[in-house]
Order: sequence, then structure tokens, then C-alpha cells
Amino acid sequence: MAILERHDTGATAHLTLNAPERLNTLSDAMLAALQGELDAIRADPGVRVVILSGAGKGFCAGHDLREMQAARQSDDGGAAAFADLFARCTRVMGAIRTLPQPVIAQVHGIATAAGCQLVATCDLAVAAEDTRFGVNGVNIGLFCSTPMVALSRNVSRKRAFEMLTTGDFIDAPKAVEMGLINRSVRADRLAAETTALADKIAAKLGAAVRIGKESFYAQVEMPIESAYAFTGDAMVKNMLLDDTNEGIEAFLAKRSPGWQQ
Amino acid sequence: MAILERHDTGATAHLTLNAPERLNTLSDAMLAALQGELDAIRADPGVRVVILSGAGKGFCAGHDLREMQAARQSDDGGAAAFADLFARCTRVMGAIRTLPQPVIAQVHGIATAAGCQLVATCDLAVAAEDTRFGVNGVNIGLFCSTPMVALSRNVSRKRAFEMLTTGDFIDAPKAVEMGLINRSVRADRLAAETTALADKIAAKLGAAVRIGKESFYAQVEMPIESAYAFTGDAMVKNMLLDDTNEGIEAFLAKRSPGWQQ
Amino acid sequence: MAILERHDTGATAHLTLNAPERLNTLSDAMLAALQGELDAIRADPGVRVVILSGAGKGFCAGHDLREMQAARQSDDGGAAAFADLFARCTRVMGAIRTLPQPVIAQVHGIATAAGCQLVATCDLAVAAEDTRFGVNGVNIGLFCSTPMVALSRNVSRKRAFEMLTTGDFIDAPKAVEMGLINRSVRADRLAAETTALADKIAAKLGAAVRIGKESFYAQVEMPIESAYAFTGDAMVKNMLLDDTNEGIEAFLAKRSPGWQQ
Repeated sequence: MAILERHDTGATAHLTLNAPERLNTLSDAMLAALQGELDAIRADPGVRVVILSGAGKGFCAGHDLREMQAARQSDDGGAAAFADLFARCTRVMGAIRTLPQPVIAQVHGIATAAGCQLVATCDLAVAAEDTRFGVNGVNIGLFCSTPMVALSRNVSRKRAFEMLTTGDFIDAPKAVEMGLINRSVRADRLAAETTALADKIAAKLGAAVRIGKESFYAQVEMPIESAYAFTGDAMVKNMLLDDTNEGIEAFLAKRSPGWQQ
Repeated sequence: MAILERHDTGATAHLTLNAPERLNTLSDAMLAALQGELDAIRADPGVRVVILSGAGKGFCAGHDLREMQAARQSDDGGAAAFADLFARCTRVMGAIRTLPQPVIAQVHGIATAAGCQLVATCDLAVAAEDTRFGVNGVNIGLFCSTPMVALSRNVSRKRAFEMLTTGDFIDAPKAVEMGLINRSVRADRLAAETTALADKIAAKLGAAVRIGKESFYAQVEMPIESAYAFTGDAMVKNMLLDDTNEGIEAFLAKRSPGWQQ
Repeated sequence: MAILERHDTGATAHLTLNAPERLNTLSDAMLAALQGELDAIRADPGVRVVILSGAGKGFCAGHDLREMQAARQSDDGGAAAFADLFARCTRVMGAIRTLPQPVIAQVHGIATAAGCQLVATCDLAVAAEDTRFGVNGVNIGLFCSTPMVALSRNVSRKRAFEMLTTGDFIDAPKAVEMGLINRSVRADRLAAETTALADKIAAKLGAAVRIGKESFYAQVEMPIESAYAFTGDAMVKNMLLDDTNEGIEAFLAKRSPGWQQ
């Protein structure tokens, strides 16, 4: 079995973190596999949505601490290896954010430290009710500084700060309330609800969703006037697609669109 | 009947989108009328608050798709016309944001696409419980890229992303929970509750509210130290108003202020 | 009795605003005392957490209006004095934000205007249920422009705008919902709950919390790629601490860490 499983159903690519004996930690091998699959999906016009889940008892427990400790043996105490690790991890997070296709986290069990960061980084997230979310590195003396980049862009400041400094876990209903995830569902409904969300998005015009996702993260960091200039251009580009013309014509004629895509 | 009705009650200007047969879409004529009235109100010291509502079955259904489709006949397939349309729409949104007076959206029925953007752009919003809010352009192949500029500055990222990619509607209680609007009220209480909110703000010192609104959107985009420098200057300017001196004196003497404004 | 009381219990410094007859307003003397104690705590490796509370009926009622009015007697009508006051107040807020140790507001009674800003500025906040929070300067003609810098970085735009322009108060449960504070508790549990939160954070590795807090406010204002580069460096620095090595080793060996700190 590969450390990262991929199987596609229709236009949805399912990626499953598959190192259940290590709670799907983001080991060197796992990061490399994720980067590879995301690069492949980016170039795959047949994929419209990605679902990211974890095999076994939980979604993802963050970095692989045994691998990190092993790096301390080098002359610099591991400094270069750690810098390289966080750069590779950041690259994977960036690959999710900049992937043209929406990525939905399907979360169960635990999502801790960089595993919680992965949830925060995905565009959408559905979780089983009893999932435990935490940025709990502080408990072992390693503050979740990189996870907080994603967390603090999803959750209000005081809530993020509390999670980061107390290491406390929250459950899925609380995570919905905070804005960290979209939906909390019964565990036995997790796959079905996540798939239903993916199917709904996969039925949209793929080119429009791609334009939209790319614009979303770009504009959110801009001053508002720049954001409007940028998204105005995106709207023009979107309007000039033949399929968008057809979509609007169909809507005005009260019929279903016959999209080429 | 004008496409945009204005009537003033006391210091409140009521603007009513008045093209109910087209669900008050932001046609060329509607955008021009809005820009014109906002420019007039900006220069009108008698107006302290604006209430923006829609006539007929809903608040606003976004852009006028028939007009947009007609523009495709030009040599460039409509590119220049679309760019111009989004620029004019952005200018109207900017006119609301930079208007010295607070603008309250009074929302009922539907607020979709650029209509939802209009709600997000207003400083405050009150809506009837059963209002349907959506950024549903994705359903016809036109991602709501410009509406998301306003939406994503009001609502957390995952919630905004879900609305944009699914096209799903939310009701007013959900919109309150997300931060998109301030209040959800019974439909038969909508006008009364909106007016009560307007009256409360209109009773404040107008010059102070103007200084505050101008500072609000400027500071929110600045790094925090710049924001404090900017608002510190605003506070000094505010303190030097004769009416503010009177307001503080009255407070310390436990009497009502006798404002000149 | 000093205008600002300090007593330490273990690694927690308790600062108590102690001008109850003036509702603990941020007078010149209070601001100077706060700046002095924060500077002392910054350099004190024995302090891991700070709790900030108010003596008497409320937490803090904002600026000292009598002192401000007195400044109007100068030739410039008070302009220079007001600018200096807001600069000193901003410096105190910055001292809380940049203090290496987390600061928890323990709030009761009222937290208004710059008192509400103080709550928003603290890293964490616990409040008694019936606390009244407001940025109500608008009621006396002085818009809470500097408080809104802190408020609008904690609370969504429409909620912040409503509080600022109506002057309305909210209670603690509402403040939790909005993200302004972390917890609303029964008044008779306020000190105990705040202390429990402080104790939990004080038990963490102090150096890790310091790295984390410093990174938190720095990264939150950066574009996301810069934020990741910055926090990646923070993670490396954190990993290279001997105590972090021990923390991870202990975790992997399922024993308690023997930290030197």
C-alpha cells in the first residue's frame, strides 16, 4: 500500500493519508507523496474536486517527531534539516491553496498540530462530530508557529491564541462555530456528506470554479481597491468563456446549460 | 416612477431600488442612478444616515444578465463593455464605503450575486428572516469574483468559499451568525427595526460619526501601528470640535448636550 | 494604595487597576503606571503570564474625561496634549501586544471605550456574565476611533461598526460569540476561572510561549508566504532549545518532561 492512496470517482480525486500506524504524520515520505499528487492533479483537467482524508483512527497528527529528533545528530543540531522540513511542509500547504481545484478535508479522529493546519489550509472541511482539533505542540515545548499561519486566517484572534497557548482540543461543533470547518456530521455520515459536497461543486462549470478559487486567495490579501481591480479582470475573463455564455443563455431561457467542458 | 426612489424623513435618506419587475438588478440605469444619488448625499449635510431597500419581491438579484448578453455583439465579444460594467459597479460599492454617512441595507426576499455584495458593502444590514442570500453566479458558470471581495471581508474564509463554490443560499439567521448582516427580524418588523437603528445613529453627533466611518475602513487595511497613528489623528480632530467639547461637558455635568450641528 | 497594584503568585503577575472611584479610567497616572509595570514584567524571566483586572465596580471606563477637558485651556485648544495622550495610550496597548508573556484580561462590571480597547488588546479575556462592553464614545460626540483599531481586529466588521455607531452595550455571552473575549463565567467564578487559565499557560515551556506570542502578531499582518517564512524560522529556533528536545523526547518515551527553565 502506498503512503498516500489516490483513487478517482468521476471528477473527484480522493487522496488518503495512509500511514495509520503513525496517525498519518507528515513524514518526509508523506510530504513528498502529497506534493507529487498535488502537482499531478494540478495538471489534470479531469479532476474538479479533491477530497483529502486519513486512513485509520485519525486524520493527521502533525509532523513526524521521530524523524525530527533523528535530525539532531547533524553538526548544526538539525537547524538546516528543520528549516528544510518546514519549507517542504509550507510548499505542500501552498500547493493546496494554489491548486486550481477546491480541496475538501474529510476529517475524523484527530487533527492536531500540522494536521490541524492541513484542515485550516483546505478550502473546505467536513468532520465527524467527535473529531478532536488542536494546535497542541505547546504541550511538548514546540509552539505551533507554522500551523498558526493557517489557523489565524480562519479563526478569530482570541480563539486562535487560546488554542495555541493552552494546547486544548476542540470538537467539530465548536470548530464549525469558530469557522475552522464547514460542517460537523455524524461519523457514519462523514464520507457521504463530504462526497455530496464534492459532487455539488464538481457539477459546476470547472473553468469558473478555477477562476474563482485563484482569485479568492489572491484578492483576500489585497487592499480593497486592488482586490476589485483584480477580480474585475477575473469577471471579464470568466464572461468571455463560451460555456459561461451558454450558462447565462440557458438560465435566461429557463433550460439546462449544455456545457462543452 | 424613477428607477431609484429617494425620500427623506428627518436626517435619513431612504433609497429604494425600484425595478421590481427585474428584481432590482444593477442595470446600467440602476448603477448610474445609485452613483448619482450617493454623490448628492455625500455633499448633503442634512443627511446623517441612508437606508437602502428594494421595491417588490426582493432586495436585489445582482447584475442585469440580459444587458450583459447584449454586449457580446461588439467586435471584442463584450470585453471592453464588461470591464466598464464591473468598474462602474465597483465605483458604486466604493461610493457606499466612502460615503461619510452610514448606509444600512434593509433586505427582504433575495439578495443574490452583486445584490449580496451590496448587502456586504453596506455598513450595517437588517433583513427579514426568510431572506435568501447567495453568491450563486457559479450556478450559471459565472463565479461571483467581485462580490467575493465584499463577502470575504465580512465572513470567515471557509464559509465564504462554500457559498461561492456551492451557490447555496443562506437565510437571515444564518447570515447574522456569519457576520454578513446585523439583525434578522420578522418580515412585518423590517421597516420599523431598520428605521429604529437609523434613528439611533442619526441622533449621534454627525461630525463624530463621519470621522469614525472614514477612519473605520481606512484603518482596517493598515498595519496596526499605522492604524493607531491614523486614528490617533482622528481622535484629536474629533476632540477639537466644539460640539464634542459640549458633549463631554454635558456628560460630566449629567445633562443633555446642546449640540450646534 | 498605588493606582496600579501588582502582586505575583507563582509565575503569574496580577496587575489591578486601582482607581475604583474613577472606574479605573486611563488617567495620565494610570497609563504611566501601566507602562512602567509592563516594562518591568517584560524584563522579568520569572513572570510567565499576566492577569489584568480592575478594582471596584468595573474593569475600566476608558479615558479620563476630566483630565482631557482640562487640557483645552492651552493655546492650541489641547491639540498637542490630546495627540500626546493618544500616543501614550497606544504605547501601552503596544506594550501589552509585544509583551513576551500572554496577558489575560479578567473583566467585570464595565469595559467601555478605551477600557473595551484594553480587553480587545489583551491576548485572552475572561469576563463575568453581566459585564457590559461598549465603545460608546459616540454618545458624547467622541467616536471611539483608537479603540476600533483593537476591536475591528477581533470582531467582524458589521458587528464592530454597529457597536461604534450605536454606542450600544453587549454582555459577556454576546462578547464570546463575537470573538471579543474567550469565556463568560459566573461572577463568583471569575477569579478562579481566570487563574485556572493562567495556570494552564504558566505550566507550558515559557520560551516556547514567548516565541509563539511574538510570532502570532507579527505573522497575522503579513502576506501568507512571508508569514510562513517568518514562522518557519520561529519553528527552527524553537526546535533548537534544549528544553524542546527534552519535551519531545519525554513525549516519545511517554514520561513527563524535565524542563530546565
